[in-house]
Amino acid sequence: MLTLNTPIYIIGSGNVAWNLTKAFTTAQISIRAIWSRHHQAALEISQTYNIPIIEENHLSQLDGIFILAVSDAAIETVAKKINHQAAIIHTSGSTPIDILTQTHHHAGVFYPLQTFSKHKDIAFNQIPILIEYSNDDIKKILENWTTKLQTQSYFCTSADRIKYHIAAVFACNFVNHMIAQAEYWLEVHQLRFDLLKPLIAETIQKAMEQGARQSQTGPAIRNDQITIEKHLKTLEHYDELKNLYSFVTQSIISKLKKE
Amino acid sequence: MLTLNTPIYIIGSGNVAWNLTKAFTTAQISIRAIWSRHHQAALEISQTYNIPIIEENHLSQLDGIFILAVSDAAIETVAKKINHQAAIIHTSGSTPIDILTQTHHHAGVFYPLQTFSKHKDIAFNQIPILIEYSNDDIKKILENWTTKLQTQSYFCTSADRIKYHIAAVFACNFVNHMIAQAEYWLEVHQLRFDLLKPLIAETIQKAMEQGARQSQTGPAIRNDQITIEKHLKTLEHYDELKNLYSFVTQSIISKLKKE
Repeated sequence: MLTLNTPIYIIGSGNVAWNLTKAFTTAQISIRAIWSRHHQAALEISQTYNIPIIEENHLSQLDGIFILAVSDAAIETVAKKINHQAAIIHTSGSTPIDILTQTHHHAGVFYPLQTFSKHKDIAFNQIPILIEYSNDDIKKILENWTTKLQTQSYFCTSADRIKYHIAAVFACNFVNHMIAQAEYWLEVHQLRFDLLKPLIAETIQKAMEQGARQSQTGPAIRNDQITIEKHLKTLEHYDELKNLYSFVTQSIISKLKKE
Repeated sequence: MLTLNTPIYIIGSGNVAWNLTKAFTTAQISIRAIWSRHHQAALEISQTYNIPIIEENHLSQLDGIFILAVSDAAIETVAKKINHQAAIIHTSGSTPIDILTQTHHHAGVFYPLQTFSKHKDIAFNQIPILIEYSNDDIKKILENWTTKLQTQSYFCTSADRIKYHIAAVFACNFVNHMIAQAEYWLEVHQLRFDLLKPLIAETIQKAMEQGARQSQTGPAIRNDQITIEKHLKTLEHYDELKNLYSFVTQSIISKLKKE
């Protein structure tokens, strides 16, 4: 039977495993042990948070709640290793809950809509958690966690969760890539990236306050071909940047034509 | 002769004209008058800031300092209308100073590295100003303005200025477009954009603190083809989003392969 005292195990040793372990520990949600196929990485978490490592062959024997913070590709394989009587929760944006319910009655999803890195602390109480569950016992567990973490949980179907994940790719990974291109381009020419910081801050503030579609500016949205041509000429010999510039510019212009 | 008391005229009525007029007025840099080929828009500024409008045929007669906050395409044409003894300053990121020096001895560039919108106030003292000048008289004028505006000016050649402008397109216009796509996609599916806000805030904070190339996360940088395929399948029937997703993903992956 699942209770709030059922032992919790973390499986994985990447960015999500690190951040969950830290957040759970801080929120006094006790983690019984950890396992990862990357032993060295597991050891680091184990030592940092004083949590024992379990052996792989114990996964099929232990009862408890297993949180899978592993790569999407590994979820199914790892799930099969885990005691089928145990409860199993994955943390993936793009993986349906079904991948767990085929082997486990007690299954759930606990997907923090955030970008994590190993060595950057993050205030967990700001993170929306998208949850899904195979039954009410799991629901209670997940909601108890979000309460203790002082964050908000939102029920979200697998179909909607992948849509949020796609939106997150645009708003986080792609946004970051655009900034990375600016950073690279300025570095190549020994110009100062820090001069862009107020611009970036204002861009984000405006997008949050007025909506991003509303607040688009620049040569593409004005369909200012003279400036666009000058930019493309300056980007000569930087094929990748030039292609990216052209493609995104066309994407902005084509939106414009439809509105 | 140019002095700090030489009258200042603003030419234009778009976002930059609005924001400059406001900032100059606040900083007690007096604006003598304004002109724009869009009379109605000029009238709005004129009434808001209590600044007279001048007639087009006075442009060739008045002496003073003319700040051109007009579209890049209009700079050359408008410059020709202005008294060739007067000083003329443009505010464009992509236009060389030469376009002014062919007609005017006193020429300069005053390019605020920022995104402006008409009705959103912005703290001008946070904005780096890239300046260029044809002589020391103009230099003094421009530096005096930035001092009064309590902002920093940076000397920047025309060749470097367009490079900053390109970086600004990536870090502002393209960043905003990516957020706009996330916004649109969630709206189509009646999902909540506000859940992305902590993610966006963290993305930017991370990029600013650790550098954007350093802090790239997501399926593309992991070359996680399974997730990428799932996303592309979910984006089916949304051709533009799907193409943008593919293109930017490829761009991230190709950077990865080079590093």
